[in-house]
Amino acid sequence: MSANKKISDLGLVLPAPMQVPAGVELPFRFTRTVGDRVYIAGHLPQQADGSLAQPIGKVGDDITVEQAYQSARNVALSILGSLQRELGDLDRITAWGKLFGMVNCAPDFTRQPQVINGCSDLILEVFGSEIGAHARSAVGMSSLPFNVPVEVEGEVIIRT
Amino acid sequence: MSANKKISDLGLVLPAPMQVPAGVELPFRFTRTVGDRVYIAGHLPQQADGSLAQPIGKVGDDITVEQAYQSARNVALSILGSLQRELGDLDRITAWGKLFGMVNCAPDFTRQPQVINGCSDLILEVFGSEIGAHARSAVGMSSLPFNVPVEVEGEVIIRT
Amino acid sequence: MSANKKISDLGLVLPAPMQVPAGVELPFRFTRTVGDRVYIAGHLPQQADGSLAQPIGKVGDDITVEQAYQSARNVALSILGSLQRELGDLDRITAWGKLFGMVNCAPDFTRQPQVINGCSDLILEVFGSEIGAHARSAVGMSSLPFNVPVEVEGEVIIRT
Repeated sequence: MSANKKISDLGLVLPAPMQVPAGVELPFRFTRTVGDRVYIAGHLPQQADGSLAQPIGKVGDDITVEQAYQSARNVALSILGSLQRELGDLDRITAWGKLFGMVNCAPDFTRQPQVINGCSDLILEVFGSEIGAHARSAVGMSSLPFNVPVEVEGEVIIRT
Repeated sequence: MSANKKISDLGLVLPAPMQVPAGVELPFRFTRTVGDRVYIAGHLPQQADGSLAQPIGKVGDDITVEQAYQSARNVALSILGSLQRELGDLDRITAWGKLFGMVNCAPDFTRQPQVINGCSDLILEVFGSEIGAHARSAVGMSSLPFNVPVEVEGEVIIRT
Repeated sequence: MSANKKISDLGLVLPAPMQVPAGVELPFRFTRTVGDRVYIAGHLPQQADGSLAQPIGKVGDDITVEQAYQSARNVALSILGSLQRELGDLDRITAWGKLFGMVNCAPDFTRQPQVINGCSDLILEVFGSEIGAHARSAVGMSSLPFNVPVEVEGEVIIRT
């Protein structure tokens, strides 16, 4: 089954390009394709219109693990939106390589894997266990841009 | 000399696959091979049976730099265990590419390089200065999964 | 226009190799080339002679965003110095792949993009918007080696 069909069957909607908060310049690309590889910039949780999604804050303090899991699913959708725009067709992805999952949290928070599972699970639901398989780290950051709870970057391999 | 012979000569033992703490799902792969490249997920310090190794805690607070250096050596062994299972033969590795070394520490701790040297040193002891050479960062994290002191991810190049 | 000509026209000077502070061993390479890819180790802000550049400290506490932007520009120069020594000719770079920008900051600091823009902007000034384009993350670290305010690692693609 194609990735786009799967996204539709799951009732998911890929968000519009990120609406950057006023006064901020982001002089980089959300995806950078070189040969058969796409470097995926750090993505944030977005609403369908591309604006930052709530909740905003630190996991473990302001935000529960369950809420942050949903934020991480949202980040996966942001990534898929960028890849759709870059590639034209998500089925050009032949393999997920890696995800690097960052959780904005207090120093005593240790459940980063349970949060970033939101991103991994969505990738696996859409691409299946073969193409969607990926290496991963899930770690705790002192802080993240705009105080978002989760940011994820990664790499995929594509059919050129 | 082969990597496995060197590991044996050094009296080192590659640990069993990671025993994931109860109640945690890890829906990713510890290694992901695509073409001639292996993405290495974030690995933690393990005992020979695959369970998490002591000490657990923050470097500079609960754990000394010397202890954390040993934890980083342990992480290198965890990585080599995963690569052995993935590749069948560690001598298929033709070049180490990079290591990204993360230290769970207080905001005033600044000796991350001395900690992550434990991982770099072991890789160089086993693979030598040519194959084992690698780029690296060694940085301070707000927190890490299960409160481990050190986590390292990376990439290697292999003979396909 | 060649990258070196551009560097000269901009009045920039690539620093000498990093002078590692006394008593520290760094058993890795600042660049690691494998095939057509160069892994760039985490680089720090350096003065022309390779010693660490001031200011040292945490962004948002000891250091302003404007100062940290300059530190991030300095890090870009450190990276270009390493690449010049590795490649002999910066015009062998055919594409910037990614930058991973790390800001040493307090937990309530959220302006990492504005800091790391210093590094991105300099890369784009020297290489232009096509070769210089890159994916990026800009995130907040609990601490960094030697208490530097900014560290950046990355990857570039080269003509072999």
